[in-house]
Amino acid sequence: MTFSVMVLGCSAAIPTRNRHLSAHLLNANERFCLIDCGEGTQFQLRQYHIPWKRIDYVFISHLHGDHFFGLAGLLNSMHLLGRTNDLYLYAPEPLQEILDLQFSASATTLRYLLHFQRLEMNHTSVLIDNQKLKVLSFPLKHSIPACGFLFTEKNPPRKVSTPRSFAYCSDTAYDPGIIPVIREAGLLYHEATFLHEMEKAAQEKYHSTALQAAQIARDAKVKKMIIGHFSARYETLQPLLDEARTVFPETYLAEEGGLIDCGNNES
Amino acid sequence: MTFSVMVLGCSAAIPTRNRHLSAHLLNANERFCLIDCGEGTQFQLRQYHIPWKRIDYVFISHLHGDHFFGLAGLLNSMHLLGRTNDLYLYAPEPLQEILDLQFSASATTLRYLLHFQRLEMNHTSVLIDNQKLKVLSFPLKHSIPACGFLFTEKNPPRKVSTPRSFAYCSDTAYDPGIIPVIREAGLLYHEATFLHEMEKAAQEKYHSTALQAAQIARDAKVKKMIIGHFSARYETLQPLLDEARTVFPETYLAEEGGLIDCGNNES
Repeated sequence: MTFSVMVLGCSAAIPTRNRHLSAHLLNANERFCLIDCGEGTQFQLRQYHIPWKRIDYVFISHLHGDHFFGLAGLLNSMHLLGRTNDLYLYAPEPLQEILDLQFSASATTLRYLLHFQRLEMNHTSVLIDNQKLKVLSFPLKHSIPACGFLFTEKNPPRKVSTPRSFAYCSDTAYDPGIIPVIREAGLLYHEATFLHEMEKAAQEKYHSTALQAAQIARDAKVKKMIIGHFSARYETLQPLLDEARTVFPETYLAEEGGLIDCGNNES
Repeated sequence: MTFSVMVLGCSAAIPTRNRHLSAHLLNANERFCLIDCGEGTQFQLRQYHIPWKRIDYVFISHLHGDHFFGLAGLLNSMHLLGRTNDLYLYAPEPLQEILDLQFSASATTLRYLLHFQRLEMNHTSVLIDNQKLKVLSFPLKHSIPACGFLFTEKNPPRKVSTPRSFAYCSDTAYDPGIIPVIREAGLLYHEATFLHEMEKAAQEKYHSTALQAAQIARDAKVKKMIIGHFSARYETLQPLLDEARTVFPETYLAEEGGLIDCGNNES
């Protein structure tokens, strides 16, 4: 059984020649969760041979376009490709009206049920809690309301020593307030839009530096961290990785299409 | 001076591994017009090294997602990349509210003026008429309100024998009613979603077959035609081309990234 994440896009704000916009796929013991859905996500899902039909949950962290402009297209393509099973969408409230308007303008009635679940943006909240999976949302510190998500497996397979978990924190300024929620996560995805030499710009734009991401990872005692959401200004990412590793050695760069396991699998 | 079209996407409804969603760039003597803007258009503009900043006009034919889901992302990227010059957007009325909601949800105030010009969907209408260019919109026959566009150069360069023109007709069922408007165009882009063996499906979905596109081209006496907006069911497109050429030999397949001249250039 797998509990792993694939990064589909790791560019902040605008795409670059090599990096796509924010989207991440969590395979939680064969339950597929899409986390953020920047423009082009449906192309990336196709590129990496992801079985679209099996995505049953979509989580949108906030309504900056680079995190959701791919959603209407994805939902529409699912419809055109014959999806019939229900889809659960957890997102900030205004997204519902945006989607409704788009589907109304195109006279589209989706062939499947889309359950829109409004995120609570101001405090930690349980989104899903069943026999297999628990999902929490929690507030991040950004220029518009934004949530992080914590995915924890329930009743892990025998070969797994501890429940595996994945914490997703993007977009956010440096915010130690999230530490109690994400403490000891198996895998943390934390944005690292800038190098620390741009700390002031990061603060002004409510983003984090690679160093700050590493401080969060260290202080929350997570097992490992992926950094992503890189500013388009960085052609090479090694300096961001080097910077983070000075504080938290178990840091890895988001690599589109790569699979990262979310915890200790003793098998 | 050039008056040419580049197809950026030629797939209908959903993208395929090799074909992107509808978008076309007209270079009208160095005035750049974007015609339709499916998801991923900003990636295609980058892919083909198009100078985004010089796109001053955007035309959206209708509000099926495959023709406009890339627009919000493109407008947003133009904003983030520092655009300051005005942009003129000609589109069906509901698009204004869709864009307003998206920019409001992301607390985005564009750095440039976006002039929204509501298309008249029920009759032919002059959109632009200046010393260099005349643009008409005219109704197409589709499942939702849709317009075609006719671009005609004014005062062509001396080396050009006749004013060059480009007629864009997508999406539409077979509709001889458009012939008087597009008559003798230098280049016609006409959708050819299906082979004629699927005539009934084409009719039901308000699309055209390759044969029907060719009948329009022949009867309108255009100089040449590109067919596009191909159903994802067709892996190879040669049968569509062969079918159209039985009726109108000067037919060419839309080829993403290729440049097609819009008329006789005697130079």
